[in-house]
Amino acid sequence: MIARSDAVDLDERDPLAPWREEFVIPDPSLIYLDGNSLGRTPKRTVAALRRVVDEWADDLISSWWKHDWLQLTLAVGDELAPLLGAAPGEVAVHESTTVSIFQQVNVALDLAGGSHGRCRVVAVDDTDFPTDRYVVEGIARLRDVEIRHGLAHLDGVDVVLRSLVDYRTAELADLPAETARARASGAVTVWDLSHAAGVIDLDLPGAGVDLAVGCTYKFLNGGPGAPAFVFVAEHLHERITQPIWGWFAQRDQFAMDRAFDPRPGVARMLNGTPPVLGLTAAREGIRLSVDAGISAIAAKAVELTGFCIALAEQSGMDTDTPRDPRRRGGHVAIRHRDARRLQQALAERRVIVDHRDPDVLRLGLSPLTTSFTDVFDAMTVLAELTA
Amino acid sequence: MIARSDAVDLDERDPLAPWREEFVIPDPSLIYLDGNSLGRTPKRTVAALRRVVDEWADDLISSWWKHDWLQLTLAVGDELAPLLGAAPGEVAVHESTTVSIFQQVNVALDLAGGSHGRCRVVAVDDTDFPTDRYVVEGIARLRDVEIRHGLAHLDGVDVVLRSLVDYRTAELADLPAETARARASGAVTVWDLSHAAGVIDLDLPGAGVDLAVGCTYKFLNGGPGAPAFVFVAEHLHERITQPIWGWFAQRDQFAMDRAFDPRPGVARMLNGTPPVLGLTAAREGIRLSVDAGISAIAAKAVELTGFCIALAEQSGMDTDTPRDPRRRGGHVAIRHRDARRLQQALAERRVIVDHRDPDVLRLGLSPLTTSFTDVFDAMTVLAELTA
Repeated sequence: MIARSDAVDLDERDPLAPWREEFVIPDPSLIYLDGNSLGRTPKRTVAALRRVVDEWADDLISSWWKHDWLQLTLAVGDELAPLLGAAPGEVAVHESTTVSIFQQVNVALDLAGGSHGRCRVVAVDDTDFPTDRYVVEGIARLRDVEIRHGLAHLDGVDVVLRSLVDYRTAELADLPAETARARASGAVTVWDLSHAAGVIDLDLPGAGVDLAVGCTYKFLNGGPGAPAFVFVAEHLHERITQPIWGWFAQRDQFAMDRAFDPRPGVARMLNGTPPVLGLTAAREGIRLSVDAGISAIAAKAVELTGFCIALAEQSGMDTDTPRDPRRRGGHVAIRHRDARRLQQALAERRVIVDHRDPDVLRLGLSPLTTSFTDVFDAMTVLAELTA
Repeated sequence: MIARSDAVDLDERDPLAPWREEFVIPDPSLIYLDGNSLGRTPKRTVAALRRVVDEWADDLISSWWKHDWLQLTLAVGDELAPLLGAAPGEVAVHESTTVSIFQQVNVALDLAGGSHGRCRVVAVDDTDFPTDRYVVEGIARLRDVEIRHGLAHLDGVDVVLRSLVDYRTAELADLPAETARARASGAVTVWDLSHAAGVIDLDLPGAGVDLAVGCTYKFLNGGPGAPAFVFVAEHLHERITQPIWGWFAQRDQFAMDRAFDPRPGVARMLNGTPPVLGLTAAREGIRLSVDAGISAIAAKAVELTGFCIALAEQSGMDTDTPRDPRRRGGHVAIRHRDARRLQQALAERRVIVDHRDPDVLRLGLSPLTTSFTDVFDAMTVLAELTA
């Protein structure tokens, strides 16, 4: 029988516990288990936003040079790169996640080969996050593309779009094996790392990943609607063409009389003038994870989710989240037909989780801001509510 | 001979002069004539950003409902609508200008008709702002589209993409006449209002405009890289399909198991999770222009640019900016073969302008933050430097 003192012991031994102090936590009695939807507010971000607004007011247009705003998309990408195991120059942070997925699937379609004399095929699972499916539907309307529903058989598939961590169950796909399986069928995979970045210790080059995308407002604590990242493996840099051409991707940006001639490297993924405020906030969230260390964060995620699953099992709750710690992300899914009602009842008891219809209650256990005691107390309330 | 006392007189009679107090101006001795590239920082924005960061920290995920972040793209669009003469529900503010142009040109291509059995044609002028040209080049690579260079002859053209205000000369196109000319040729026009919004008193419905896009970080003072707006005339709402499909455009956003079924109205232009920080800043800038009144702003722009042109003529400077006040935007272009050197020399004298290669010096006269004395003093320095 797990006791609250076990949670207290785990917190006392937790090397990441002090990082909670880096966040604005106005009400310590609130248990927030939705950092996988919107991460908490880093204190550094509050200061950085003040600073960037001062730069804007003080230095006006010259801030683009004086404060390196022109390079911000790539500079923030370079700061994020270690969290992906990527090298500097392989990551940019710029547009929304949806736009970034749109770009990457189009890049993959071009990489997958020229004219086969046939319609190209994009495979996506019907249970993947809606935006991923919608983006593929939109591209199929725009270009000569057919959709393969499901990833079981990849013969004849040109592009695979898939999430590394299932947004419902937290199941973590086998990144190297699944990338290799797609490649063996001749397909390029675009990995959506939205529910993985900042909570899984990733090695994209080691896993043979070509293209990836992910959001920064979940485990990376980048702020509401923070810009997403795109990763392009270095060996592809000279071969990629993305669909949305703007002046920030132009080789000589301020020579205004030329045809489009894209910059080398991941910079050719850029579009127009980037969102400086959003990038400033994203950078601080990313830095926190880099500074705390992704291997320590990933290790704590395994401990937190394991602790949560053990508590769920102890109370006879039903969860689809994998028991194998190598096969799960940073949240735990509790299945219950009253998920929606339970979410509200938990909120009334000051425990914030989310739910996904029809029957999934998600507990996001963001390692930098979640304690074992938080998990114990939340699961105790949930056990009472479902008893 | 225009004297400095004339400028002082004009400032004393200027009904918009008090609005300068609404902006953070750390160094009143700096003359900033580049508000057409990056507008100044509204004081309200500083406060609003603090507030939205507090909302994020305090209310976390529930802010999407409690503070109506879910509706922010459309709410800010509705606030911007009067500046365009548009109705509520015709404008959304969400992605970068480049992405917004990409969306609108694709929308226009679909509106322009089904399969003609021929390649569709997009007309764009070779002197238009680079991003506009680049976006069209990118689309021509993606879809079966041919580019017509130049707007003189529109026969056989399906879509026209053009800027309302020329980013170099400030020449203002005849919005109703040019929209009608394109329509008479069977073409749909996408108007890029980036250099017009917030400085020209627009009536898009009255001018018969179907589709438009524009940025909010210039005359609208929305902040660096602030999200752009898209306008879709109401009569087209049920007919448009944009290319980048995401969950914020989905009719029942949180029903996760459906195929894409776009929301009615301009909401179908939305993509993914919107940039809340950038939207918050954009909203404050937009509100300032709405509160000050666009007809007063546009009238002052005519006065400021006219005053600047008169001073240029008095000093024998060369300018391409139209003398007819109905044919110019909110900046003045001085032609000089040493434009780049002059920009630097002006900056050393605390006058900030910008230049565009090879020979254009641009003086942006943002009405809410520029005084007639600013213009007089800047032109006096420029006259000294070019004497």
